[in-house]
Amino acid sequence: MSSSYNMVAHMHIFAAFTPPERLLMGPGPSNVAPSVLKSMANPLVGHLDPVFVKMMDEIKTMLRGAFLTKNDMTFPVSGTGSAGMEFCFVNLIEPGDEVIVGVNGVFGTRMAEVATRCGAIVTKVEAPWGQIIEAQQIADALKKVTRPKLVAIVHAETSTGALTPVPEISKLVHDAGAMLLLDAVTSLGGCPVLLDEWNVDAVYSGTQKCLSCPPGLAPVSLSSRAMEVARTRKNKVQSWYLDVNLLASYWGEERVYHHTAPITMNYALHEALRLVAEEGLEVRWKRHEQASRALKAGLEVMGLKIASQEGHQLWQLNAVAIPEGVDEANVRKRMLTDFNIEIGAGLGPLKGKIWRIGLMGETARIPNVKTVLSALGQILNDAGRKTDTDGALQAVQ
Amino acid sequence: MSSSYNMVAHMHIFAAFTPPERLLMGPGPSNVAPSVLKSMANPLVGHLDPVFVKMMDEIKTMLRGAFLTKNDMTFPVSGTGSAGMEFCFVNLIEPGDEVIVGVNGVFGTRMAEVATRCGAIVTKVEAPWGQIIEAQQIADALKKVTRPKLVAIVHAETSTGALTPVPEISKLVHDAGAMLLLDAVTSLGGCPVLLDEWNVDAVYSGTQKCLSCPPGLAPVSLSSRAMEVARTRKNKVQSWYLDVNLLASYWGEERVYHHTAPITMNYALHEALRLVAEEGLEVRWKRHEQASRALKAGLEVMGLKIASQEGHQLWQLNAVAIPEGVDEANVRKRMLTDFNIEIGAGLGPLKGKIWRIGLMGETARIPNVKTVLSALGQILNDAGRKTDTDGALQAVQ
Repeated sequence: MSSSYNMVAHMHIFAAFTPPERLLMGPGPSNVAPSVLKSMANPLVGHLDPVFVKMMDEIKTMLRGAFLTKNDMTFPVSGTGSAGMEFCFVNLIEPGDEVIVGVNGVFGTRMAEVATRCGAIVTKVEAPWGQIIEAQQIADALKKVTRPKLVAIVHAETSTGALTPVPEISKLVHDAGAMLLLDAVTSLGGCPVLLDEWNVDAVYSGTQKCLSCPPGLAPVSLSSRAMEVARTRKNKVQSWYLDVNLLASYWGEERVYHHTAPITMNYALHEALRLVAEEGLEVRWKRHEQASRALKAGLEVMGLKIASQEGHQLWQLNAVAIPEGVDEANVRKRMLTDFNIEIGAGLGPLKGKIWRIGLMGETARIPNVKTVLSALGQILNDAGRKTDTDGALQAVQ
Repeated sequence: MSSSYNMVAHMHIFAAFTPPERLLMGPGPSNVAPSVLKSMANPLVGHLDPVFVKMMDEIKTMLRGAFLTKNDMTFPVSGTGSAGMEFCFVNLIEPGDEVIVGVNGVFGTRMAEVATRCGAIVTKVEAPWGQIIEAQQIADALKKVTRPKLVAIVHAETSTGALTPVPEISKLVHDAGAMLLLDAVTSLGGCPVLLDEWNVDAVYSGTQKCLSCPPGLAPVSLSSRAMEVARTRKNKVQSWYLDVNLLASYWGEERVYHHTAPITMNYALHEALRLVAEEGLEVRWKRHEQASRALKAGLEVMGLKIASQEGHQLWQLNAVAIPEGVDEANVRKRMLTDFNIEIGAGLGPLKGKIWRIGLMGETARIPNVKTVLSALGQILNDAGRKTDTDGALQAVQ
């Protein structure tokens, strides 16, 4: 074997990566609390170590608390939010199943795509981006579809800033005998997500939004009904990595090795959930609401409007309509390079039409609202638009 | 909405998790260098931030160096090693494709399962656990199968400690017009993995073995031929999350948002690869070889044998045959609780028959070899087996 060594080229040695301190006010990731960052510098233990296994149980307990559910099968999937989405569909859907998907932004579009790749017959219920999915639309679709197995909606659409109410839709779905799947990527931890009260059968979220943990895990929860569906499938789950029947043995009592859990990411999630618990869910929701109100008050003084549907606007993701004649990409670029603030661009049909200002988790605080308003005001002024930045800052309570 | 708040139960607040300092000498994760741990405490940036995008490119360059390949599509999948396995199969296989899988341990077994879930017609080439897959076996299988599209083998079987040589198998596979898929989870960084020289079409690895980075990412590489196969599929890739055609747009020039990359895990991988580059691949392989030789010399004095096939034993994972009459689970338990050393149990048919002593990445050092021999000797002595621990330690060079 040693003769092979001669052909080995030297690997290029790059400098160590030292990221700048950004204020993360885009669509996520959000800023992470110091204790969460510090937790990841802890030494590793094995994925079957009794101390790690105990911590896994604590994560499950805290996730149940955050989701307000008693679902046993509540745990973090070892991937990002989109892996959580795929987890829900691959386990609950078999080829030929009829699925209704609410499509009013990027993530509804993605759900329809993922469901199709699972062999589902997908009926899309569409609303303009920025609007919510109305219960009546779901009612109409349920009448049209022969045997609806699953209805999937996005609770908080990160791409548009719209929050679709769940309870009425849930009732319709269950009256029709179907299951309800909820995308709670951006809602969990930032506004009420009441899994059991709303009778949600399957939910997925991400860690990097209102939980303020780095991206890399997808908290999910399946009701006992959903678990029954997964357990009694005719066909094997098409993904081995995401098969809940196998994952249940690792995250359950038996602790059968499935895959090597991302140890450090679980350290971070444990600490992030601890912070949520210490703050309290209601207090945390209130903090998001107040930060968003403050931002909107300031934006209004500056003559800027929220683009998403009145009465259904997210606190944690504020879609700001870009005024005519503004070079929106340049504004974002200056925010980042001159002020170290990240804000998000619009996607799809909203590209060039909105900025997305995130107020998620740790970031959802009044001083950050003032910082972003001040920077935005200065950049707009520099671009020749008279902007009352001082007035905006005064409007922030 | 505020009325809902009343029903909210308080989340249980657990104590902060403070892991013990383990010496990780099991099948992975391995111990992580201080600078890698520290890198994860760095503040987050966004997944589309220009500074992050530049770091992604550096990771790709360093991974190409580690894999010894020029393959453009070389990057870390946002999941653990098993997600990397699934990535390779879902992209290269369509229903009805004929696949040959070498099965001589847990991971070959898993590959056959994953391929089946992709709709492949799988032919298993089997060897007893602990033995390698012989080139002649592959030659025989290639003759039997009508149109073999892909042959998959595990380079370093973590479950058994056997290292299957690749070059001869690769020649047979390509002469038959098929592609070669390699599991390099445990080999990458610990012994030669010469992707281009061996003409490997698809490979996946993990970060938590000989790269000594926490688990959470799966380095993969696809040859231009494999990319062509993925691009010209008849059916869409069944996994949206792992679809290389979509991932290529995020990890390539265009930087189109696909999913939120696990930012912090990429910090860690960047730093871990930097350390590999600084040490140099040959020096690192040599270090693994020396640590394994030292361990074997010590074990021999203690009357313990390596269970895997002579001449094909891994340096980084040493399968130690458990002597008659030893309570193997109790030995592992005492190693962990009394000495803070993790060693691995046997899996499947090797359960209760071997311990797996890992010497991976940072862990593959002579002082650790002495520590594990000393602890093992003491525990065996306590159990009434006369063991020459001093002699074993003297045998370690």
